[in-house]
Amino acid sequence: MTVHTGLLRLETEGEGQIVDLTEGVLAVVRQSGVSSGIVSVFVTGSTAAVTTMEHEPGGVQDLREALERLVPRSRPGGGDYAHNVMNGDDNAHSHLRASLVGPSETVPLVGGRLVLGTWQQLVLIDFDDRPRRREVHVQVVS
Amino acid sequence: MTVHTGLLRLETEGEGQIVDLTEGVLAVVRQSGVSSGIVSVFVTGSTAAVTTMEHEPGGVQDLREALERLVPRSRPGGGDYAHNVMNGDDNAHSHLRASLVGPSETVPLVGGRLVLGTWQQLVLIDFDDRPRRREVHVQVVS
Amino acid sequence: MTVHTGLLRLETEGEGQIVDLTEGVLAVVRQSGVSSGIVSVFVTGSTAAVTTMEHEPGGVQDLREALERLVPRSRPGGGDYAHNVMNGDDNAHSHLRASLVGPSETVPLVGGRLVLGTWQQLVLIDFDDRPRRREVHVQVVS
Repeated sequence: MTVHTGLLRLETEGEGQIVDLTEGVLAVVRQSGVSSGIVSVFVTGSTAAVTTMEHEPGGVQDLREALERLVPRSRPGGGDYAHNVMNGDDNAHSHLRASLVGPSETVPLVGGRLVLGTWQQLVLIDFDDRPRRREVHVQVVS
Repeated sequence: MTVHTGLLRLETEGEGQIVDLTEGVLAVVRQSGVSSGIVSVFVTGSTAAVTTMEHEPGGVQDLREALERLVPRSRPGGGDYAHNVMNGDDNAHSHLRASLVGPSETVPLVGGRLVLGTWQQLVLIDFDDRPRRREVHVQVVS
Repeated sequence: MTVHTGLLRLETEGEGQIVDLTEGVLAVVRQSGVSSGIVSVFVTGSTAAVTTMEHEPGGVQDLREALERLVPRSRPGGGDYAHNVMNGDDNAHSHLRASLVGPSETVPLVGGRLVLGTWQQLVLIDFDDRPRRREVHVQVVS
């Protein structure tokens, strides 16, 4: 058994910026030399998430808008979110969106290839309301 | 360490069809002979997702309706989704729903048994707006 | 290769209660003696979910409210959910919320440490509409 660890360090703009992680993840896989196993991708922090999408400008705009609509920056019904009130904070919406989308995805590695689709990229969404430095961990298990 | 790979090929109707993957995943696990490890289930493509649910007709109808309500086929507020406008496409809603639910789940395998509940099935949701051939990868790591 | 299995047994109040799993998961990791690998956390059952969040009272209240708003207990548009009608049940909303958030997360274990953020906890959300006994499986693969 082998475990190979990769760490992707990114600077994001926050505010729902969506960053394509695929090349970074593939670089870790190549360095590992592993051809069969699984690859776990995980973002550290409670205001960012990992998922997959077709990473093109239209889809990026749609996903940012959909999340703003589903979990608005301002609390639906009025007043402020409890997280903001109780902690003197302003990014409660970022936390909510991150928990809904989730911080991890695990992708099979088969015959030396991640089984992503041609139009399916691994992405980081940074929901925080300010620029952040992010660490995405890539663990190759085989 | 061993990695066993299974590939489930499915033909779906799209339009939010929900397919029970559990028997197919269990067949891969049985073939692997593995009794302790984890099983990663991943759908290739950016308009489908994997999750768990009680796969019965009522729950299936409710989940399809809930996703149509949360991420409508027609862009809330009017106009069309940017993905559709910029790519001459019509399945932006499919992409959004897929990214929200996510393409992967990982299930522990303990004492020869997947630790799913009695009324908990692994499912594929095909959100695309037309019939599709899908590949679901099942990776057994032990 | 080694697989270490941990089982967290919890009694919850249901109704969206959010329980911090982090200490329990860390205890399993410590017992395993593993310093490098991945840790899969999975809840058995179709009315509960696993994700990460900053587990503090404000965020907990916000996340419970957001899920009640996104997937109300009463079916939007009137009538009852099909799951309730067809099965004489009353927790269709619990099932929907569980499928949206999802039952599993996988966290890298690097240098003896789970790569969670300082303000990022692994949590169980029990969406059922009554108290439940829950089993959360923790699989350490290295």
